[in-house]
Amino acid sequence: MPTPASAPLAPSDRLLCGPGPTNVDPAALAAMDKPMLGHLDPEMFEILGEVVRMLRLVYRNPEGLVLPLQATGTTGMETGLVSLTEPGDTVIVGASGYFGRRIAEIARRARCTVVEVMEDWGKHVPNARLLEALDENPQAALLAVVHGETSTGSLHPLAELGAALADKPDTLLMADCVTTLGGSELDIHGWGIDYAYSCTQKCVGAPPGMSPISVSAAGMERFAARSTPVAFSFDFELLRKYWTERPGAYHHTAPILHIYALYEVLRETLVEGVAERCARHVAAGTRLQDRVRDAGLGLVAEPDHQLPQLSAVAVPDGVDASAVQRELLEKHGIEVGGGLPGAPQMWRIGLMGPNATTATADRVFDALMAVLETKGAPVSA
Amino acid sequence: MPTPASAPLAPSDRLLCGPGPTNVDPAALAAMDKPMLGHLDPEMFEILGEVVRMLRLVYRNPEGLVLPLQATGTTGMETGLVSLTEPGDTVIVGASGYFGRRIAEIARRARCTVVEVMEDWGKHVPNARLLEALDENPQAALLAVVHGETSTGSLHPLAELGAALADKPDTLLMADCVTTLGGSELDIHGWGIDYAYSCTQKCVGAPPGMSPISVSAAGMERFAARSTPVAFSFDFELLRKYWTERPGAYHHTAPILHIYALYEVLRETLVEGVAERCARHVAAGTRLQDRVRDAGLGLVAEPDHQLPQLSAVAVPDGVDASAVQRELLEKHGIEVGGGLPGAPQMWRIGLMGPNATTATADRVFDALMAVLETKGAPVSA
Repeated sequence: MPTPASAPLAPSDRLLCGPGPTNVDPAALAAMDKPMLGHLDPEMFEILGEVVRMLRLVYRNPEGLVLPLQATGTTGMETGLVSLTEPGDTVIVGASGYFGRRIAEIARRARCTVVEVMEDWGKHVPNARLLEALDENPQAALLAVVHGETSTGSLHPLAELGAALADKPDTLLMADCVTTLGGSELDIHGWGIDYAYSCTQKCVGAPPGMSPISVSAAGMERFAARSTPVAFSFDFELLRKYWTERPGAYHHTAPILHIYALYEVLRETLVEGVAERCARHVAAGTRLQDRVRDAGLGLVAEPDHQLPQLSAVAVPDGVDASAVQRELLEKHGIEVGGGLPGAPQMWRIGLMGPNATTATADRVFDALMAVLETKGAPVSA
Repeated sequence: MPTPASAPLAPSDRLLCGPGPTNVDPAALAAMDKPMLGHLDPEMFEILGEVVRMLRLVYRNPEGLVLPLQATGTTGMETGLVSLTEPGDTVIVGASGYFGRRIAEIARRARCTVVEVMEDWGKHVPNARLLEALDENPQAALLAVVHGETSTGSLHPLAELGAALADKPDTLLMADCVTTLGGSELDIHGWGIDYAYSCTQKCVGAPPGMSPISVSAAGMERFAARSTPVAFSFDFELLRKYWTERPGAYHHTAPILHIYALYEVLRETLVEGVAERCARHVAAGTRLQDRVRDAGLGLVAEPDHQLPQLSAVAVPDGVDASAVQRELLEKHGIEVGGGLPGAPQMWRIGLMGPNATTATADRVFDALMAVLETKGAPVSA
């Protein structure tokens, strides 16, 4: 009888320049080869403490709760929504892309009344429109926006929104930082963000597997005052105890090797400097975007609100977007993303984490041009 | 100014013989060093398919939904409870340890009416008592038991329970297989288990990070007929599409390297043979348990319901349990677990995955004896 086991894994080499995951920082890979501790080991507790300390520096939030959930970015989103609202609450959502719409969908599943402030794909949602919605719904428990809209490459003016909401303490501010943590300036405490969530596989440069979150002191007060229970798995108070109070606080088994990886990329980020790391992402993204425009191609996002690390390139008329992606992958070993369901035709090119370099920008752009030329696309490389 | 970065990671070497995590199978570690694919790469989709196929063979469930959640074992527990019940439903829970009690707590958070069938720590919950509870609550939507109670080392007679419930199709059967998948015989379909969940860091031998689940066809029908929404993150139907239907089904970014690790340990399990792997766990556990009894020490679980891979050793009177654990860790580099909150004093010794060998059983037992002798404990090594 043949063995029912599959063949040994033999994945191909890829330069991952889609919307995420990005290639993993070598320091993170090396970390996962280090001896694995038990999750209740005193040494592990030290490591958890350092991860929290470093993550606070990267998010710039000294208060409330900061830690990585063992979760996808979407679960980070969902955890914030269900933890900081109760059924029947009003939630205002700014949505001009796939992930803004996802926030609205999840808020509806959480039985909230959702006020969606929508804009077309690629646009940002003007803060004035969000504030107008809040004037009309002053009872709103939460206002949520996407800092970096991964589906279009649009960057929200988050600092300004935070400032405008400073005198509205009853409406918490939630921001999707999935594509911005580690790549764009963030000042979570200074900007008054009550809940931020991210992932590890984009600008942070670790493998996918965790969702770093930040909850303000006001967010923790809101959580403590809940009248309805939340899921045990993502209970902020149980997580806080597990991560920061030992011995004796058992909640789950932490994903130890992934935490090692996160530890090392946070360390590298602080050694490089958060501002310097963001500048590197800006330099790489700007290089790519300049070359895209010079070639006569369009970008989906507005120029004034373009996320550096994610470029959504509009597909020229008559070009088969998936065929281009496939050829990039098969002939050049380069992954770029396509548009998400409902979005206009686009290629999404990410330059994140270790791939945020002008050299990588050039490599992926040159390959795209080479493929487009074989397709007879009207570009001037 | 000193850099705010932490020192490079330098975890100590440990032989992990607690209740989990166990040391990682070298094949899993090697897998995580292979080139990382994007989660939507056609090659990755093949890998997801193979993981599902192999996991079905290990769980022995050809129907319904089988896949690993990006989640802790506890989230696997919670996902089953919230997905297969609706608020107000009755759930019968067999609880004779920490994890049975946790099922009851989570079911209460899910606003179910919980009927707890309790037994003392270390006892199993007799099937007759569970069936009696069902006779009294024939409307119960779900009956949940812990196959291997990680807090005491007690093994539930699950096959017999499944057979007894065969004529009660309206009450789904849920089993905690966190400590049994890959180490104890499981016939999820044959036994009529509607929902099983596990983890990857115990007998499976991968790092912590995922929760393999199995849902029967009846479970999926129950899910499809729900009248209340579930969390987006763990929606069985969305997960099914993401794992098994491409292209176009986006849901989250899968933890790619962890899936590589799981792929390789599932592969190794099938190459070794599931029955042979279980026999190896039995041989290792039996060796340890025989030596424990020969030394005049007690085991917390009943002899007829002793889980081979997890031995809960009763702490002799007058011995400081934590001091022994600490000395094992610091002087011998061996981790064993203590009792969980509320449990009697015990050491929990796991021989799981790559550590399920008689040689490891001897090594950990000899070290425990050496430490106990220095503490003047009344043992005959």
